[in-house]
Amino acid sequence: MARANGFHFLQIPGPTNVPDRILRAMAAPTMDHRGPAFQELGRHVLQVVKPIFGTKSHVVIFPSSGTGAWEAALVNTLSPGDTVVMAETGHFSSLWTEMAKRLGLDVRVLPGDWRRGAQPEAIAAALDADKERRIKAVCVVHNETSTGVTSRVGEIRKAIDATGHPALFMVDTISSLASIDYRQDEWKVDVTVAGSQKGLMLPPGISFNGISEKALAAHKASKMPRAFWDWTTQIKSNADGMFPYTPATNLLYGLKEACAMLMDEGMANVFARHQRHGAAARKAVAAWGLETVCQDAREHSGSLTAVWLPEGVNADKLRALILDKFDMSLGNGLSKLAGRAFRIGHLGAFSDLQLMGTLAGVEMGLKLFGVKLKASGIEAALESLAAAASERGAVRHAAE
Amino acid sequence: MARANGFHFLQIPGPTNVPDRILRAMAAPTMDHRGPAFQELGRHVLQVVKPIFGTKSHVVIFPSSGTGAWEAALVNTLSPGDTVVMAETGHFSSLWTEMAKRLGLDVRVLPGDWRRGAQPEAIAAALDADKERRIKAVCVVHNETSTGVTSRVGEIRKAIDATGHPALFMVDTISSLASIDYRQDEWKVDVTVAGSQKGLMLPPGISFNGISEKALAAHKASKMPRAFWDWTTQIKSNADGMFPYTPATNLLYGLKEACAMLMDEGMANVFARHQRHGAAARKAVAAWGLETVCQDAREHSGSLTAVWLPEGVNADKLRALILDKFDMSLGNGLSKLAGRAFRIGHLGAFSDLQLMGTLAGVEMGLKLFGVKLKASGIEAALESLAAAASERGAVRHAAE
Amino acid sequence: MARANGFHFLQIPGPTNVPDRILRAMAAPTMDHRGPAFQELGRHVLQVVKPIFGTKSHVVIFPSSGTGAWEAALVNTLSPGDTVVMAETGHFSSLWTEMAKRLGLDVRVLPGDWRRGAQPEAIAAALDADKERRIKAVCVVHNETSTGVTSRVGEIRKAIDATGHPALFMVDTISSLASIDYRQDEWKVDVTVAGSQKGLMLPPGISFNGISEKALAAHKASKMPRAFWDWTTQIKSNADGMFPYTPATNLLYGLKEACAMLMDEGMANVFARHQRHGAAARKAVAAWGLETVCQDAREHSGSLTAVWLPEGVNADKLRALILDKFDMSLGNGLSKLAGRAFRIGHLGAFSDLQLMGTLAGVEMGLKLFGVKLKASGIEAALESLAAAASERGAVRHAAE
Amino acid sequence: MARANGFHFLQIPGPTNVPDRILRAMAAPTMDHRGPAFQELGRHVLQVVKPIFGTKSHVVIFPSSGTGAWEAALVNTLSPGDTVVMAETGHFSSLWTEMAKRLGLDVRVLPGDWRRGAQPEAIAAALDADKERRIKAVCVVHNETSTGVTSRVGEIRKAIDATGHPALFMVDTISSLASIDYRQDEWKVDVTVAGSQKGLMLPPGISFNGISEKALAAHKASKMPRAFWDWTTQIKSNADGMFPYTPATNLLYGLKEACAMLMDEGMANVFARHQRHGAAARKAVAAWGLETVCQDAREHSGSLTAVWLPEGVNADKLRALILDKFDMSLGNGLSKLAGRAFRIGHLGAFSDLQLMGTLAGVEMGLKLFGVKLKASGIEAALESLAAAASERGAVRHAAE
Repeated sequence: MARANGFHFLQIPGPTNVPDRILRAMAAPTMDHRGPAFQELGRHVLQVVKPIFGTKSHVVIFPSSGTGAWEAALVNTLSPGDTVVMAETGHFSSLWTEMAKRLGLDVRVLPGDWRRGAQPEAIAAALDADKERRIKAVCVVHNETSTGVTSRVGEIRKAIDATGHPALFMVDTISSLASIDYRQDEWKVDVTVAGSQKGLMLPPGISFNGISEKALAAHKASKMPRAFWDWTTQIKSNADGMFPYTPATNLLYGLKEACAMLMDEGMANVFARHQRHGAAARKAVAAWGLETVCQDAREHSGSLTAVWLPEGVNADKLRALILDKFDMSLGNGLSKLAGRAFRIGHLGAFSDLQLMGTLAGVEMGLKLFGVKLKASGIEAALESLAAAASERGAVRHAAE
Repeated sequence: MARANGFHFLQIPGPTNVPDRILRAMAAPTMDHRGPAFQELGRHVLQVVKPIFGTKSHVVIFPSSGTGAWEAALVNTLSPGDTVVMAETGHFSSLWTEMAKRLGLDVRVLPGDWRRGAQPEAIAAALDADKERRIKAVCVVHNETSTGVTSRVGEIRKAIDATGHPALFMVDTISSLASIDYRQDEWKVDVTVAGSQKGLMLPPGISFNGISEKALAAHKASKMPRAFWDWTTQIKSNADGMFPYTPATNLLYGLKEACAMLMDEGMANVFARHQRHGAAARKAVAAWGLETVCQDAREHSGSLTAVWLPEGVNADKLRALILDKFDMSLGNGLSKLAGRAFRIGHLGAFSDLQLMGTLAGVEMGLKLFGVKLKASGIEAALESLAAAASERGAVRHAAE
Repeated sequence: MARANGFHFLQIPGPTNVPDRILRAMAAPTMDHRGPAFQELGRHVLQVVKPIFGTKSHVVIFPSSGTGAWEAALVNTLSPGDTVVMAETGHFSSLWTEMAKRLGLDVRVLPGDWRRGAQPEAIAAALDADKERRIKAVCVVHNETSTGVTSRVGEIRKAIDATGHPALFMVDTISSLASIDYRQDEWKVDVTVAGSQKGLMLPPGISFNGISEKALAAHKASKMPRAFWDWTTQIKSNADGMFPYTPATNLLYGLKEACAMLMDEGMANVFARHQRHGAAARKAVAAWGLETVCQDAREHSGSLTAVWLPEGVNADKLRALILDKFDMSLGNGLSKLAGRAFRIGHLGAFSDLQLMGTLAGVEMGLKLFGVKLKASGIEAALESLAAAASERGAVRHAAE
Repeated sequence: MARANGFHFLQIPGPTNVPDRILRAMAAPTMDHRGPAFQELGRHVLQVVKPIFGTKSHVVIFPSSGTGAWEAALVNTLSPGDTVVMAETGHFSSLWTEMAKRLGLDVRVLPGDWRRGAQPEAIAAALDADKERRIKAVCVVHNETSTGVTSRVGEIRKAIDATGHPALFMVDTISSLASIDYRQDEWKVDVTVAGSQKGLMLPPGISFNGISEKALAAHKASKMPRAFWDWTTQIKSNADGMFPYTPATNLLYGLKEACAMLMDEGMANVFARHQRHGAAARKAVAAWGLETVCQDAREHSGSLTAVWLPEGVNADKLRALILDKFDMSLGNGLSKLAGRAFRIGHLGAFSDLQLMGTLAGVEMGLKLFGVKLKASGIEAALESLAAAASERGAVRHAAE
């Protein structure tokens, strides 16, 4: 919502700042979803999303938010009463756990302290202990949006492989896809859960399941009741570029544009940009004398940075002050982090200068709120970004 | 998709022609769905949709297409194995029936010939026969999008009441809401199922359940597993103008605009406009010497007109010719109407002149396709519209 | 301005219905008009407009409306007191004449009755009589927007050539460019005057001068004071894709899109489409028993049709009724045609079905206004369009 | 041009960053500029711009860029050979001077060093010396866009008044209107020249003349040839909310929105915001150890800051590096400042955080370019903005 006094900084860890190119692409008139023009569009987007998932297998697209894709992953592959292992990494892994329980699954939670990712060792141990092969799936959140901790999915894969356990491996990439390096096929992930409103730079409203052949086999045998989420009807329609019921056509227009933009930048550059922004944000946090929620140097997120506040400083009041004074939205602390931490989203369509504006807003907010800062965070971030800039080529700035 | 050679006529019975005002409203940047500005938006849209449903009770909004709202209606109110009565009126009632079966319900279908609406007498008979009160719900499609037949919901209500049966009454209004007179509270409908892409003039992507107090009570007792579709979490969040998971924010921007536009025109005028267009379309069909699918004069739809073609005339080839020559999309015949009928959508944002262009395209297509026409359909339609125009006031044409 | 009750029919002879593709292209953020991205855009549009003018010579673009391009044509080529011949064809030729007088030129008007185009013979006679070669320019309106009469520019060229007179030949193509066949180089037109808001399908705000080498030579010698309109500074900047002062950047975005759309359709198809619509409109007028303003069968316009009304029928009241009842804007009768004639614009982005809707609106309006009609105009138009459709290929209807 | 890697920082001193609200308002379909809906729009915008000029007199709107409004000011009030006094303040005052000469006026330039505004004393001296009252107008650029120097218009008025000289007073406010305090009526300015693409936050394409009664009287007597720019025809049409020839309708849609946004913020807040940003930018420049072009503390611009670079540092190469590495456009040094200075635009729709991002981009660019900086500019700017924030209320961040 741009105003006379400038545009809003939407620095929650998603929905992210939707580029105007995408908003305009989405503003095209809705078309006949059973006609030839749509078919061309459908075929196109169903193909171009695949490299973003790092897969050559099926990717299905639901007209729903990411929560729906969580549900789709579970109801398409499992049967009532099945056992699943879910690694607790924060608020969102807990919500997924709760959903699994409501859907009638037997959930074994691997507890976590919300400051580290899913532990490969713990997952291996759980699988090793499961001599009867009751565990049908292991569920991990790649990038825990509530904490800014990225689980090491490749290492978890190796740990699972070492056990020889046949459980499916499901990964929520809602706040990592198209932001943090992810490789469905290489890491043998069976179901990837994703949404539109983060790295894909779209408004919320469509969600995804990346599906391995192994997951598809499990799907044939699974007994959970399902209709809206059913993969079989999706995949059957998708073969012709179509969808089994009315798709969210205008978001598909946006998806086409988003994929083109990502390919234009290059996925390696996209990932590097997010890493650079995460590193610069952490330099600022360290300079301020504050701590990130994430405590494992291998697991810092490129999508967002969650910051602990000193005892007695209320994060929500700080966020409200920053919103009031500087028109910037930051993420709140969720569940047990409520009031104690806030989150800086730096994912999606985002630049060095937008990050500097963001960190300046946080630093001004902290000052106005009376938080004692050790040193200038923005100067530290600037040093970090300037150093990175000297080593990389030009960003794209051409006409459309 | 406007081209140099003019704009596309999207005359399928939904998605409908999205007004540019709505497309532009939706092109605003996505906002923080946990912030105060969103809260204001959420509260607003959750209120302003209610009169469109004819209810003062709850209306919940899902980020999904209408098929999802079908599923939500069932899983929120019923328990596995419950018996439901579904009136067969056409392709869409059959899809809903199929869904109910897949979700583990015991479905009793009241058969129909696809040329009439749900029969109040048949429903009453089914309920009367159910002495053990096994039937938990009666499901009816208000406007069967595949046939252009509108079931008489008010009369069905009376028939149900006459039996004293306590079954819930669920109505699919996907292609009738905001087009054909509908009154949830007055007709004591327990669950209204609706979508965004028809009378609401929005792109597809959000869907609705209007929920009576009786339905809410059934919900508390129902045992179908559910998470994404759960009403309780929706209603709880809605109390503050919020949603339990990321909503389809940009469609909510559009919904706000759509409701404002409908209120500006006045619902009575909206309904009258759709009736007028249906009547004029039927005048054209009759002049051509063709037949509508609908065979009950009380049940003609104001949203669409489905036209039977003479033996030997392939509807899909006719539609392809019209698309090629005149850039107009018409609805195909579905399931057992495939190839035999086509559908003219005249719902949503639509005017007399758009209807005349539409009917001219059909008439030219019929001529080019070699169908013998009895008389000029467009002249008959024009007479009908001119007569109506002489009796009504000015349409709105003011600046925005 | 689309409303719930459908979109507005903007059937004045310009501004025309701007395709949503162009509106969205124009909604891109304004860029630095001195940067490399702009330079790329500037070079592009300055080239792609040339075939639309039928020229390989210079085309300059002013951030002004078409009236400015009239002024630019005069002040760039003439000196105070110079004699110019202007053919009276209607309201707009008269306005151009008035402008020339105000700018201090000596104008010789070749009178006309507003129902025929500029007469080649009359122009030849005027030049022949000018033994002292005082006449510096002949000015003709290609398509007189106030009457729907197209002057025969090619024949006028031949008539001028026959006299051997060296006068410049200036042609206003404001309502013909990109609608009616026009060939600057082949017809040796020295200055073409054009605007954005008609056949180019853009909003008003940029205008054009197509400039021959002969005009450029005259420019060097001309003495009219000028600054904003000066060709020399334009052409100098244009060499690098730039403009001498801030250009109307967002309209240039639209121009790029418009040229792409026209090229996609093919100029021959664009012209044929306009001729087809003009012919169909005249069939309707004849069927109604009314008369067009244009009285020379060689000069009927493909852009608009001006219709005479029977004595006693007030055109402005008729137009007001049609606007009120059917949300369609028609062109008014100008100057001496005021109240007696109205104009149906059928230029720019326009289709057979839009024309049928337009003519239906006119026919309904005439009926409601009590005008006695001989026969159904829309049926006559439909016959004409259907016949044409049977002979041509498919229109484009692909996804963008 | 937003890309996957974030949006472009358009920090030239105009065109400015157009808010998406305005871009969307402008994307509405063009309407009939002779119909009642347009009339309503015309009346509205012609009124609401007046307070922005600080006038209750006439403001006319041309479909042209600001250069056209310069020409309009001159040709509407003067006669060939008239003497005008023009204060040299930089590149743009020089261009206006050149235009006046080309239009046949006798221009007396009051020379300046491009680092100070127009000197009230020098203007007074010139008028005093003009005993024969040959000087018909004094022309001053309020905010010289090439230098970031704001002339003290109120003081100049007083100096003129002190001489009792009757010359008209014309002020170019192209880069000051709606950014820097300006009061046409209070300061008895006779013609205000303005454009759309700076403080008014619109794309380029419309320009303005604010006209005093005294200017209107001069207009009646003036003899410069004119047609397109003629005030009389404008004012006559404007009386009914209309324009004498096709207006730039879609920019008028944007103007309506822009005026609403400015009124919503409040002009005093708008001016204060620009002053705050100018002050913070200068803090950064001083911290870096660099110098602004402006050398009079009373004359620093709130719209832009022009920065001198040390000997040997090429400003254009620095700007190219910043564009390449950080996707930010800065203004170049013009004419005699070419290569020696660059300009930071901070006008129009702009926020504290956008300014911080902008200054960070400049600081990183300077570092990468090898310019030795004395201290952190962004930290100095942040201190300045944080101090200001603590004293003011909340910015607006409400839903639209």
